[in-house]
Parts: sequence; C-alpha cells; structure tokens
Amino acid sequence: MMGKKRHLAILAEGRFTSLDAKTAVGVLRYRPAEVIAVVDSTRAGRTCEACVGVGGAIPVIADLEAAAARGADSLLIGVAPQGGELPREWRGMVEEALGRGWDVLSGLHVFLADDPALADLAARHDARILDVRRPPGTRPIAARRAAALEALVVLTVGSDCNVGKMTAALELTRILEARGMRTAFVATGQTGIVIADHGVAVDAVPSDFVAGVVEEQVLAAAASADVVVVEGQGALHHPGYSGVTLALLHGSCPRAMELCHQAGRERVRVPGHRPAVDEDSQPWIPPLDELARSYEAAASWVSPGRVIGVALNTAGIDEAAARAAVRRAAETTGLPATDPVRFGAGSLADAVDAERRAGRARAPLA
Amino acid sequence: MMGKKRHLAILAEGRFTSLDAKTAVGVLRYRPAEVIAVVDSTRAGRTCEACVGVGGAIPVIADLEAAAARGADSLLIGVAPQGGELPREWRGMVEEALGRGWDVLSGLHVFLADDPALADLAARHDARILDVRRPPGTRPIAARRAAALEALVVLTVGSDCNVGKMTAALELTRILEARGMRTAFVATGQTGIVIADHGVAVDAVPSDFVAGVVEEQVLAAAASADVVVVEGQGALHHPGYSGVTLALLHGSCPRAMELCHQAGRERVRVPGHRPAVDEDSQPWIPPLDELARSYEAAASWVSPGRVIGVALNTAGIDEAAARAAVRRAAETTGLPATDPVRFGAGSLADAVDAERRAGRARAPLA
Repeated sequence: MMGKKRHLAILAEGRFTSLDAKTAVGVLRYRPAEVIAVVDSTRAGRTCEACVGVGGAIPVIADLEAAAARGADSLLIGVAPQGGELPREWRGMVEEALGRGWDVLSGLHVFLADDPALADLAARHDARILDVRRPPGTRPIAARRAAALEALVVLTVGSDCNVGKMTAALELTRILEARGMRTAFVATGQTGIVIADHGVAVDAVPSDFVAGVVEEQVLAAAASADVVVVEGQGALHHPGYSGVTLALLHGSCPRAMELCHQAGRERVRVPGHRPAVDEDSQPWIPPLDELARSYEAAASWVSPGRVIGVALNTAGIDEAAARAAVRRAAETTGLPATDPVRFGAGSLADAVDAERRAGRARAPLA
Repeated sequence: MMGKKRHLAILAEGRFTSLDAKTAVGVLRYRPAEVIAVVDSTRAGRTCEACVGVGGAIPVIADLEAAAARGADSLLIGVAPQGGELPREWRGMVEEALGRGWDVLSGLHVFLADDPALADLAARHDARILDVRRPPGTRPIAARRAAALEALVVLTVGSDCNVGKMTAALELTRILEARGMRTAFVATGQTGIVIADHGVAVDAVPSDFVAGVVEEQVLAAAASADVVVVEGQGALHHPGYSGVTLALLHGSCPRAMELCHQAGRERVRVPGHRPAVDEDSQPWIPPLDELARSYEAAASWVSPGRVIGVALNTAGIDEAAARAAVRRAAETTGLPATDPVRFGAGSLADAVDAERRAGRARAPLA
C-alpha cells in the first residue's frame, strides 16, 4: 500500500484521540517519517505527541491546504467512523485531496473507489484510491496447510478487540528482526496493512474464505522467514467477532500464541453497535489463565499450539500500577509477561526464540 | 425467494447425485410439488428417486426445451460447482432460461446479476435473477442479544460440513410444527434459503458481520415463535469453516444444540479445495461426547447452551447398521439419538420440548 515513500496527511477530523484514531496512532508509531501532519481542525496547533502520546513534534493542522503547504501528497483516513461509511462532512476533504492529485488510502468498510464521482475525480487528476479493506478476489478454503510449516508461526490473540494485538505483533516482529532473525509480519487489519504495505483485512473477507486467505498469507510469508508473526483480530469470547478470531487461529495454525489484554478491562466491548448496547450486558473477560486455556483448546481442534507469553497494554495507568499488573499477569499464567510498548518485548522474544529452538516438538498431526 | 409458487427446472447437468447436488436434493425433499424436472442430459430418462433417493417420479430430462414443454417457469442451479463460478458449459442454459423469461435462482458465490450480459438479457425478457447468496447490505455487530430471548433457540451443530445440519433442522422444524408448536426455521445457507423462502447465506457475509446478521435473523424469527431452529454451518473442528460455525453459535446464543454427524465419517473433509488436499491430512473427528463438550465450551464463552440430542445421517448404510450406529451414538453421549430422515425426529422434538418446558433454567447472564 505504501510501496513508494509517501508524504501523508492523516485525516482524523474531530476524533484525534488515542481511543478513536487507531489507524492514525499505528502509523504515527511505526512509520512516523512518512507523516507530514494530522488534520483535525478542533486540535490544530498542537503536536501529535500532545494529542495521542506518539508522533513527537508532527503537527496537527486545520485543513488540507496547510498539509499541501508542508508537502503532503497522500491522504490517509485515520479513524474508523461509526457504521464504516464516509461521513458527509469528510467527503469534501476526500474530494479536495483527489482534486490535488493525491492518493487517498482508506480502511473504510465502504469502498471509496466504488463511488463513481470519486472514481471519476481520481481518474481526471491521476490520483489513486486505495481501499485497503478490499478483499482479494480469490476464494481459498483452508486445509491446515500452515500446520506443516518449518517456520514458527506466532499469532497474537486477545481478551477483546482493541487491546493491543497488532501492536504486540509489530513490537515482537521488530525485536526479532533486531536480533537478526528472519521474521515476517502478516497484517490482517487495515492499520496493519497500511503499516506493513501488504496483508488482507480479514474482517471484510466473505466468511467462508477467511481461514483460507490467512493460510495463503502465512504460507507466502514463511517462504522467506523462520518466524511468522500474525496479527490477531477479535477474541474468542467476543459475541460479534469470535468467528474472525477462530478463522485466523485455524488458518494460521500457530505453534505459539501471545495473549494480549488491556490491564483493567473487565468486560468485552461492542464498539460501534447501533443502537448502542449496554456495556454491562456483554461477557466478562475470564482470568488470563482460563483465557489461555480456551485458546489452546480451540487451537487443538485443528492443530496444537500454546500460549507462550502475555502482552499487557497498560496505557493510561501509572508506571507502578503497570508493573504490578504485569507481575500479576505473569503469576496468574506462569508465563513471561510485559507491556511491549512500555517495557519492551524482550521477554516475549526470548519465549519465541526458545520455542523456535525447541523445534517441531509438537505432537505429530494425527 | 420462492414467494410465488414456482414451476422449477433444476439444473444439475452431469452431477445429479446425492453427493454433488445438495441443493437439488434439498428442494426435492422439502418442496417436491414445485419441481417440474431435473436437467441432466447424462441421466435423462431416469426418475429423481432412482438418481438421488428422493423426488419420486419427477423426471430427469435432457434440456430446457423438455422442461418448457412440461410447464417450467424458473431455473434453479442445483449444484455448487468447484470454485463457485458458473461453468462455461452451463452459461448457455442460463441464457436460454432468461431468454424464455424464466427467473433464475442461483446459489453460486459469483453473482449472476452482476454479469452485465445476463442482467441485460433478464431485463429484456422480464426475467429475474435471484442470487440467494448475496449478503444483506447491513453491517450489524452481534452483542449477545439473542441470549435474552424468551423463545428457545436450537442450533444444529456438526462434526463436519455436509453431514445433515440443514436436514436435521428442517426435520425438527417440521415435527415441532406438526405438534402445534410455534416454530421458526432460520436458513443460513443457499439450499435452506431456497427451501424456506428467506434467510441469509452466512458464508458470503463479510466475516465481521456474520454473527450480527444471524442475531438479527434470530431476533426477527423469535418475534412470532416459541422455538427458533437455526440451520448450522461448518464445524468447530473444520480448518476452513470453523469461523463461520463459531459466529453462528455466538450470534444465535442457542440454549440447546443438536449434534449432527454422518455415521462412519472419520475425518473432516475439505471439498472443493484446489489443489485437492490429501484427505489423510485433515483433522480426525473426535468422539461425539468430546465433540459435544467442545460445542458447549465454545457456547459458554458468550452464552451457555447444551447439546440435547444427536442427529445421525445414516444414508448409504443398511438398516441394521444404521440402528446400531444410532444406539452407539446414544450410548456415547447419553443423549437421545436418531436418524431424523430414516427413523423420524420424534426423540429430538421430545428433547426440545423438555428443554422448552424447563424454561430459562440456565444460569443468569453474568
């Protein structure tokens, strides 16, 4: 997606917070050199660091005019609006970007390139619309082919949506690469795809083919890597997304899983549900050791795998509390635990390395 | 889909066997009065009964000309070809049907109405193309709303694809209705939709919304029923389809499940995989009691439910062996078991009735 080096303006109008602007925050964390500015007229004049805690001095500006003056040549839609459609008030900015000949990168559920007026505008100004969520045209059925790989497949799994599965996978990839291991990252969501330049947004794939698409991605990644780190999605205990989670698990056949959780979160959330659902009506998140056993049981239905570490997201709590939460997670599970962003992913990388050295120790497929 | 009474010709060219022509067999079993003939030039002159064991004297004929002479006014594509596309050699027949002004009902993954030439032909001859697999335009996220229903939701779950989940659900619906119970059937696959006139083919829904679509269907069905029977899909142990299965389970929140299995099947199958996969590389099907516990564990992640009966598909084995298989299934699981087609679904209906009378005995949602 970002095969050429871009000069991105990230659209986050009115919603540039770490809670709402997940894609913006991900790109600011992992590709800051390509971000010219973030567009949010309600926060113009501040820095990214001040708004979302990453991105340093990259400015927040009021409009595309200001972004153009700073050399932007692409617009990335950096927040996921309710319902997945392009909000009416953003349409003007998308049109303006295309009119300037900028590429527009979108992770919306509704594909902008299918909008005749936008497609026409893009064609007339030699701009491109990149709908990163558009599923591949293929219809593969998974057949546990990933279980036979020599490469170690590691999947991040979690207690809920939006707890840090992508971040944990990227941090793990980064540290394994830094240690000289041939490591591949498989992106499965729109933010991961924008960061990695490739991948498939599995949530938009027709359900029969999710595991098959993941299997294809993992097999391709394993061709040139010893460790394949797969970005997880959803949670087995999430009423809306558990199917996506299980398809990822059975498509990638991970020998190792990393369990991700946000410290302090007690119940599964259903963001974006219309009408809004009572948070208290959603399932409790089980204790981490029980959660780990659920993932291992579900994996075993197709191919055995085990949870080898815990990645805790402690954003928003103070350091002492974060350290205590990490310690409790380690005690509860008997596994290495860390907040990979705050305290580094070293212990998780050590666990992956140990698992890799142990080799294909799992029971032969039967 | 079949809101008006149709006079169907069912296309099953070269593949009119009970293994290949699942949709044709389902319609012949549950809506025989609307079938004029089956088109398969390689079997022309025989009866449906002789070819697939259902459909009595309904003839197999060579072409649409012969179907037209008998009064057909619609063409149903009755087999699912490899890859989900319209085989080149069938295109002529679809064109001929549209040219005659017939409606064409298709469960293909590729939507015929999106083919400009076919759409144009349909428009010119006042014919309609009904792509029963086309997903709804909505994007609902499930939030375990079905768990709060007064109606008893029953989901058919299974050991594999194509073991009889739709048939078990339809047989159960039929007997419950015959006993005077207000019963609704929720179709989730293309054959079920053609039989029921409504439903959603969940395998074509973008994966994020499968559970949500099922939740909507179940809530709507429960508005006028005391028992909602949901057609299951796939299997938790199937590497390709487990995600669809779990989404159905968590979208419908069944208080009761009926476990379906084909007697004698030992391993999960991945039909239609290209390249073909070695059958011996696929997971073993666990013993039925273990399978039932897996489904109950997976249900409990969102909303508790239990397996209350076993529906065995004994097609192709003799009666004594079938009775022995049913007896073994009952012994293994400690549950009522039957082949609902061969021996009737009475014991399963009794179990549903008992569960319904026990009322909302499950633990309150926490």
